[in-house]
Amino acid sequence: MKLLDGVTVLDLTQAYSGPFCTMHLADHGARVIKLERPPHGDQTRTWGPFRNGASAYYSLINRNKLGMTLDLGTEAGKGVFRRLAAKADVVVENFRVGTMEKLGLGYEDLAKVNPRIIYASISGFGLQGPLSGRPAYDIVAQGMSGIMSITGFADKGPTKVGPSLGDSYTGSYLTMGIAMALFNRERSGRGHRLDVAMLDTLFHNLENAVVTYTVEGVVPRQMGNVDPAIAPFDTFEAKDGVFVMGVGTDKMWREVCQAMGRPELGDDPRYRTNEDRCANYENSLRGILLKWTATKTVAEMEEILVKAGIPCGPVLNVAQATEHPQIAARNMVQEVDDPALGRVRLCGIPIKVRGVSDAIERPAPLLGQHNEEVLRDLLGYGAEEVRALKESGAIF
Amino acid sequence: MKLLDGVTVLDLTQAYSGPFCTMHLADHGARVIKLERPPHGDQTRTWGPFRNGASAYYSLINRNKLGMTLDLGTEAGKGVFRRLAAKADVVVENFRVGTMEKLGLGYEDLAKVNPRIIYASISGFGLQGPLSGRPAYDIVAQGMSGIMSITGFADKGPTKVGPSLGDSYTGSYLTMGIAMALFNRERSGRGHRLDVAMLDTLFHNLENAVVTYTVEGVVPRQMGNVDPAIAPFDTFEAKDGVFVMGVGTDKMWREVCQAMGRPELGDDPRYRTNEDRCANYENSLRGILLKWTATKTVAEMEEILVKAGIPCGPVLNVAQATEHPQIAARNMVQEVDDPALGRVRLCGIPIKVRGVSDAIERPAPLLGQHNEEVLRDLLGYGAEEVRALKESGAIF
Repeated sequence: MKLLDGVTVLDLTQAYSGPFCTMHLADHGARVIKLERPPHGDQTRTWGPFRNGASAYYSLINRNKLGMTLDLGTEAGKGVFRRLAAKADVVVENFRVGTMEKLGLGYEDLAKVNPRIIYASISGFGLQGPLSGRPAYDIVAQGMSGIMSITGFADKGPTKVGPSLGDSYTGSYLTMGIAMALFNRERSGRGHRLDVAMLDTLFHNLENAVVTYTVEGVVPRQMGNVDPAIAPFDTFEAKDGVFVMGVGTDKMWREVCQAMGRPELGDDPRYRTNEDRCANYENSLRGILLKWTATKTVAEMEEILVKAGIPCGPVLNVAQATEHPQIAARNMVQEVDDPALGRVRLCGIPIKVRGVSDAIERPAPLLGQHNEEVLRDLLGYGAEEVRALKESGAIF
Repeated sequence: MKLLDGVTVLDLTQAYSGPFCTMHLADHGARVIKLERPPHGDQTRTWGPFRNGASAYYSLINRNKLGMTLDLGTEAGKGVFRRLAAKADVVVENFRVGTMEKLGLGYEDLAKVNPRIIYASISGFGLQGPLSGRPAYDIVAQGMSGIMSITGFADKGPTKVGPSLGDSYTGSYLTMGIAMALFNRERSGRGHRLDVAMLDTLFHNLENAVVTYTVEGVVPRQMGNVDPAIAPFDTFEAKDGVFVMGVGTDKMWREVCQAMGRPELGDDPRYRTNEDRCANYENSLRGILLKWTATKTVAEMEEILVKAGIPCGPVLNVAQATEHPQIAARNMVQEVDDPALGRVRLCGIPIKVRGVSDAIERPAPLLGQHNEEVLRDLLGYGAEEVRALKESGAIF
């Protein structure tokens, strides 16, 4: 049993944002039919890293899906798509705004063949507004949302979040909307038209930055790794690397002073309250801490601070994070037997449901791997009809 | 109509991660009863920015919820909570792992009074594994997940994402799980026990970094704002500010060369293909572009590039993003009449559903504002019973 058992999704998306959305759906049991345009398919098939000429990028975010080729530029292809849509619960697309309508496959068109369809779109800027029709990449949404203006160090200028957060987070928001719409449809019987935009999603995740501007009139700035309102709450250099520590209460601060062997600092008027510590963090407190941490390894600091009850941890690189025992205990790295890549370790599934397997059930599909299976199981096509479709060029 | 009409959520969370989860649920129509511990309530009531002594941080992420005080440390408080849980669909909590069980309010306990309950937890590290019991803050999850090792510029060291992404993204993942579980329960009749962890969530969002390590054996590094596999795809300085541009295809590159008045560069063997451009980006291509962009304003560059069909945009600060006409067109900033703050502009609701209002319906609650309403509507308490509860200290 998985949470989305019984749900069929037609996935027209490519690149990162849309496939990340449908990966969530597939990981939780939906039958996701990934429709790729022949002859090359999803552009991520050409994105690295590679092994045996195949893309691990593609395999990572398309596991658990079925793969079918379909050319929506042909009448035969559109016909098959409409027939699939009549049987499906959800359609997901991330074309530029207006493309599906031009193809005659917009929400209004599909709702005619399936009024219960949930039709879900991702775009850079959303379905309306002055920039609606504009193309966007993740970096455009990061730049315009304000997130780059409050990440990193001021002397380096605006700083992008490393991974393409505008893509992944927008995909996740669309999954959230689809799951809510599926719930609603069980009760209301109604289909829904959903859209999420990369700009909106990132803007929605600025924490208190927007109200800092609208309520206080202050434009938030880049603060490096320092918390604007809590101290000490930062990265610190140890002998052999960097770690993080967050001292959220005065009680925790006194514990840190004990651990440092300087209990008198707990009552020092410069550092007694969080307000005091914030006021004196840059000018003296940070220096005191760094003098201490420079004498220890990261592992030693972690042991000391954990004992003292202080939230802390090493700053890990991607290899160290991937091999961390906590990541292993949560099954967050799983080995999959991929038909193109061979044995490969992928990211696991982060939403844990007691009594439900969190295993990746199947690897990402080869291009067109499940053409016949889907046409047979969903549409009842026989060998003859599949051959005719192949000859029309719609599926190969 | 909203998607989660008819769903009742008991929200025991505080700070950012859990309240962000239940904000999504409330924004989409669930009746979210935020239970705060008397006499102070959620710690974010003391987090800035402030107006009239009230927290806009709190108001931002607790809009659309009902507010009730309840002391789970008292027997009377636990009794009320169990009676509420018998009527609710969802319980959300972000205490340290084990706390709810110690209170006698763990999943097993509540499933006894309501076998259909969906019980959802957020924690730093999850319900199992060697670090399960450890406290965490956002910065700890950011540090340990690897995201800080691939954000920012190498010469500044590991760089935190500005907003508390570990909190917000984990809250959003839990919302996703809750919505899927609500759908599943409509069909299966079963409740569910969900948990998500900050470390897992951020690790799940490293894009291709994990497979770059597991497949290629390469440990991804900090790349500043440059894309590792596409060029030009970066931030650029104009006369009066910074903008972003992403040139994803060779065709786009030739358009840029035209726009620059240097069409010959489109066929220059140093820059003809993406591979060429990546190889020669740092040593010459970036310099050519900067010489051009330095002669224009950001607005001029945007106009030129939009005309050429190149995904691009200005790097905006939070004030500029908040006031952007596209943000306005998407109703992503909404004015709310808050009982504590007065008229205040908050972030809107990013998952758009056609035919469904995306308005914020009610401001965040004052502490205990809906005590009597909830006790009356959900539990049928009369004035006498409410008074007795007040006197017991459980609700005030």
